[in-house]
Amino acid sequence: MLRIEGLIAAVFTPVKENGDLNLDVIDQYIDHLVSQGVLNVFVGGSTGEGASFSLAERKQLTEKWVTAGSGKLQNVIVHVGGISVPDSQDLARHAESVGVQGISTLPTVVFKPKNASKVAEHLKMLYDAAPKTPLLYYHLPGSTGVDILIEDLVNAVEKLGVPTFSGVKFTGANLKDFRRSIKLFGDKYMFPYGCDEQMLCVLPLGCRSFIGSTYNYAGHLYNKLIESYKNGDMEMALKLLDKSQSLVGVLFAHSFDSGINKQVMSLVSGINMGPPRHPIIYRQDDEMKKVRCELEEAGFFNGIY
Amino acid sequence: MLRIEGLIAAVFTPVKENGDLNLDVIDQYIDHLVSQGVLNVFVGGSTGEGASFSLAERKQLTEKWVTAGSGKLQNVIVHVGGISVPDSQDLARHAESVGVQGISTLPTVVFKPKNASKVAEHLKMLYDAAPKTPLLYYHLPGSTGVDILIEDLVNAVEKLGVPTFSGVKFTGANLKDFRRSIKLFGDKYMFPYGCDEQMLCVLPLGCRSFIGSTYNYAGHLYNKLIESYKNGDMEMALKLLDKSQSLVGVLFAHSFDSGINKQVMSLVSGINMGPPRHPIIYRQDDEMKKVRCELEEAGFFNGIY
Amino acid sequence: MLRIEGLIAAVFTPVKENGDLNLDVIDQYIDHLVSQGVLNVFVGGSTGEGASFSLAERKQLTEKWVTAGSGKLQNVIVHVGGISVPDSQDLARHAESVGVQGISTLPTVVFKPKNASKVAEHLKMLYDAAPKTPLLYYHLPGSTGVDILIEDLVNAVEKLGVPTFSGVKFTGANLKDFRRSIKLFGDKYMFPYGCDEQMLCVLPLGCRSFIGSTYNYAGHLYNKLIESYKNGDMEMALKLLDKSQSLVGVLFAHSFDSGINKQVMSLVSGINMGPPRHPIIYRQDDEMKKVRCELEEAGFFNGIY
Amino acid sequence: MLRIEGLIAAVFTPVKENGDLNLDVIDQYIDHLVSQGVLNVFVGGSTGEGASFSLAERKQLTEKWVTAGSGKLQNVIVHVGGISVPDSQDLARHAESVGVQGISTLPTVVFKPKNASKVAEHLKMLYDAAPKTPLLYYHLPGSTGVDILIEDLVNAVEKLGVPTFSGVKFTGANLKDFRRSIKLFGDKYMFPYGCDEQMLCVLPLGCRSFIGSTYNYAGHLYNKLIESYKNGDMEMALKLLDKSQSLVGVLFAHSFDSGINKQVMSLVSGINMGPPRHPIIYRQDDEMKKVRCELEEAGFFNGIY
Repeated sequence: MLRIEGLIAAVFTPVKENGDLNLDVIDQYIDHLVSQGVLNVFVGGSTGEGASFSLAERKQLTEKWVTAGSGKLQNVIVHVGGISVPDSQDLARHAESVGVQGISTLPTVVFKPKNASKVAEHLKMLYDAAPKTPLLYYHLPGSTGVDILIEDLVNAVEKLGVPTFSGVKFTGANLKDFRRSIKLFGDKYMFPYGCDEQMLCVLPLGCRSFIGSTYNYAGHLYNKLIESYKNGDMEMALKLLDKSQSLVGVLFAHSFDSGINKQVMSLVSGINMGPPRHPIIYRQDDEMKKVRCELEEAGFFNGIY
Repeated sequence: MLRIEGLIAAVFTPVKENGDLNLDVIDQYIDHLVSQGVLNVFVGGSTGEGASFSLAERKQLTEKWVTAGSGKLQNVIVHVGGISVPDSQDLARHAESVGVQGISTLPTVVFKPKNASKVAEHLKMLYDAAPKTPLLYYHLPGSTGVDILIEDLVNAVEKLGVPTFSGVKFTGANLKDFRRSIKLFGDKYMFPYGCDEQMLCVLPLGCRSFIGSTYNYAGHLYNKLIESYKNGDMEMALKLLDKSQSLVGVLFAHSFDSGINKQVMSLVSGINMGPPRHPIIYRQDDEMKKVRCELEEAGFFNGIY
Repeated sequence: MLRIEGLIAAVFTPVKENGDLNLDVIDQYIDHLVSQGVLNVFVGGSTGEGASFSLAERKQLTEKWVTAGSGKLQNVIVHVGGISVPDSQDLARHAESVGVQGISTLPTVVFKPKNASKVAEHLKMLYDAAPKTPLLYYHLPGSTGVDILIEDLVNAVEKLGVPTFSGVKFTGANLKDFRRSIKLFGDKYMFPYGCDEQMLCVLPLGCRSFIGSTYNYAGHLYNKLIESYKNGDMEMALKLLDKSQSLVGVLFAHSFDSGINKQVMSLVSGINMGPPRHPIIYRQDDEMKKVRCELEEAGFFNGIY
Repeated sequence: MLRIEGLIAAVFTPVKENGDLNLDVIDQYIDHLVSQGVLNVFVGGSTGEGASFSLAERKQLTEKWVTAGSGKLQNVIVHVGGISVPDSQDLARHAESVGVQGISTLPTVVFKPKNASKVAEHLKMLYDAAPKTPLLYYHLPGSTGVDILIEDLVNAVEKLGVPTFSGVKFTGANLKDFRRSIKLFGDKYMFPYGCDEQMLCVLPLGCRSFIGSTYNYAGHLYNKLIESYKNGDMEMALKLLDKSQSLVGVLFAHSFDSGINKQVMSLVSGINMGPPRHPIIYRQDDEMKKVRCELEEAGFFNGIY
């Protein structure tokens, strides 16, 4: 059973200039997260460009996060999807063997499941491969095109029986479905939300866990936002949300993707994450200078948080 | 300048069994709204099937709402879009002549504007036709396919100069854009939100006005929700949101559209709204019996509100 | 019963610089068409920006085309859709009263029909309004989002009974559906094809009528293409298709829409069509100079045809 | 340089009832193809569910097709895409090592390329891995969402330099782009077409190669269609196209996908292909009995071909 409250950083995958994995910086990366009060990571998802790395690389990455995180991080969740089911099962088996706290998967992306039952079947196959490891479905309909209701998915999962099922990473727009799932199933499963800059919209819905990329470098801000909300200080919570939106606004002004995001992480953290992989575009120095200025204007480097 | 706080009911258009306008019941309709504390209406939008009525009918409808609402309603806003710009200008001119408080328009739908500047141009043409009547843009990207940022739109409008521009009815998923617009322009314009069952997600963003169809028959519930939120009683607010979602859940289980919605209004209010117009499907008695049962199960007829 | 073979020009709507209708040039326009062997017109469709003109303007336009075409054109088909059904019925009634050879309609566009039966219902309502005038459905799924099979539509129409139904203007990509409809129903109805530059792809499918905008200024080319095909001269047919694609390629290089198309018509025919209406962009002189050069390079002004 | 004329069967991947590869039947499968005059295969594409098999399985499959096809088949093309680029390079390297005649790839599907240059970069990376093996891009915009022009792609490829680039498997709707590419580049590259039942639409465009799934069981029909076309017998060509459409019509009536297609192959060929893999649905016996009847009615088992 996986129950996490608070922030889960969707971590980047550090590479060298030539694109090879750069596992060595992950120790430093973890310290950077911990220093912001971020104690949980989601490895190899959209932010981590999991689907752009080979199976062998994904295994190395998992091992490194588990080893380096030991004693420092509370939860390492590894994304094992975006590939064929048997290869995904292989990653799941490996993740279980090295002791991750959870695994997660996108639906199959070349051939897409037609309905929630089919997705439940997929989750069952991952349970078969890793029967002891909590499993989260990764709901990302805007990208995958698999636009099921997560309420339907949980019902399908319970009907089929997937003992390791632990919830849904929700990066969708249907907040009615989101709230309904929290209400009906929130005592049994977790439903981490994936739109960082809209956090304040879902706190009133009972959402208590969050997976996102900006928690890599703005963890303090978001932790303070959650705290303000819990204390009933809505004014401060909104002020912090606005700050997060100014930040994310800069990324969107530069065609937000995992590339600009990764480069901003390098800029802000001082840890070199290296370039994104194909097909994501690497922004040139000129553009990154502008990004830096805009982040400064947005008050990012001398924040209230 | 149009500044409305609270609920604005997107009203249905009552018709007789043969589909002709049934203006006579509008007096009773208004009393029904007022009894729920709903004092503002949005006429001839998606809920009111505006685009399914002739120009002549739309004018009659406007006149009736203005006349019957006099002394009872605070604001009558009339949707004049969904048709050619010159015909839309004709409706705008007429609406101004009979004294509506505001008009609103979708973007052109057969030939779609490519960007925010083009939408601003459109608004300017409606200003030309009705230079004294506050004007709201109706942002409904999921249906129209015109997926601009409303922040961009307001900037384009201010650059071009549209003196009657009063804000944006926002029925979109990009809550970052929504909050940003409220933050930047909320002191000058209104940004009513259009997803009733997600109201609690945008109250923390500073949203204070709401246009929706369920305010026709669940006005008490939503007014109480807003009040609870203002009093800091988040628990009650969430309880009421859940209730609203149970209600809307029934509609969605029957393929939500302006047809089932209109029929539920007849059921709940006891005022016969008549059938929807082509191409919207009219649900048969059998189905409506089920709907009634499901609404009862959802606790709709003996509510806490 | 409407049975047309060969080209039907989807005509532009000439306006003055201020955007008002410029009906006077239509006489000259007709001579221009006739001189190219184009004897049929489709008025007020996508090319003619029908949905951007008021009901009153659309009626004037219809009257002018009928009057001016008398004795010169063989068929005037008028598009009466893109608006509410009652207003569309009004246009249909008017078109019948002035003696057009056919009418046509898009599906409703703000509220969209869910299936072929609903579209058949719509056609029935136009039959009610104009019971003596042949009626074509205008299939344009890429724009309208109404992606039914026309085979299903014809079956639904026959089941419902729409005596004036005469076929489908087909501007879609599903050529299997297109061929199947020609095969099953080609003896009863006409299925004019709407992608000019792909004409040679559908001639082998038995398609014999074509509605398109480039027949306004390249009628000779396409008439010769059809003739070549009929004579079994596939080499010449392909050569002419390539020429048509070079021409259309220029338009696409300038973001093809009814605006650039209208301006090219003015350029090529020497008849001033005026600017497009909102929201279509009017290309400035600089851009049109380039377009002219590119058309010359493409061999358009000194053609083999 | 890869230059193939005629049919290339997109082959199914035979599995046992438990889903494991069933390589043994491939010998028989090849004889079945050869007996229909089909001498080229495309392995592990959409039809072959390549993206549903593990890397190890895909390698075994490649080896079997190469070995078993030796002396019988002319060309074995292997799809190596639908996965991460490094794993795809691994498959490419392996395919080259065992002596395939060509490889092919979809664009990356989780993170999608933004433009033609990015796709060219991808092809370059596969060239790096398999520098001696002809490479086809697999254009399938309806599924992948990567809707570039193939004319732009070829230009980008030539600018970047990808010595093994051999053309594009085209399964798109833009036949203007298709013809233009054949015209401009048809002497250097091949552009096999992927919509079997529309073959007659592209023969006049100069298309001479075809990759499709129905060539697995209706090879005679299509070979005869091509022959009829070449002989100028358009009537017979159309008759055969109609027959192919009747056949495909049955598949579409049962929600066409690689599952129903695979099961029809088992039915028609008598070679047991086994079930499709997740997430594709396996049709039950009841449904397959109906399919059989419908295929008989469509005249499939006692054809003119």
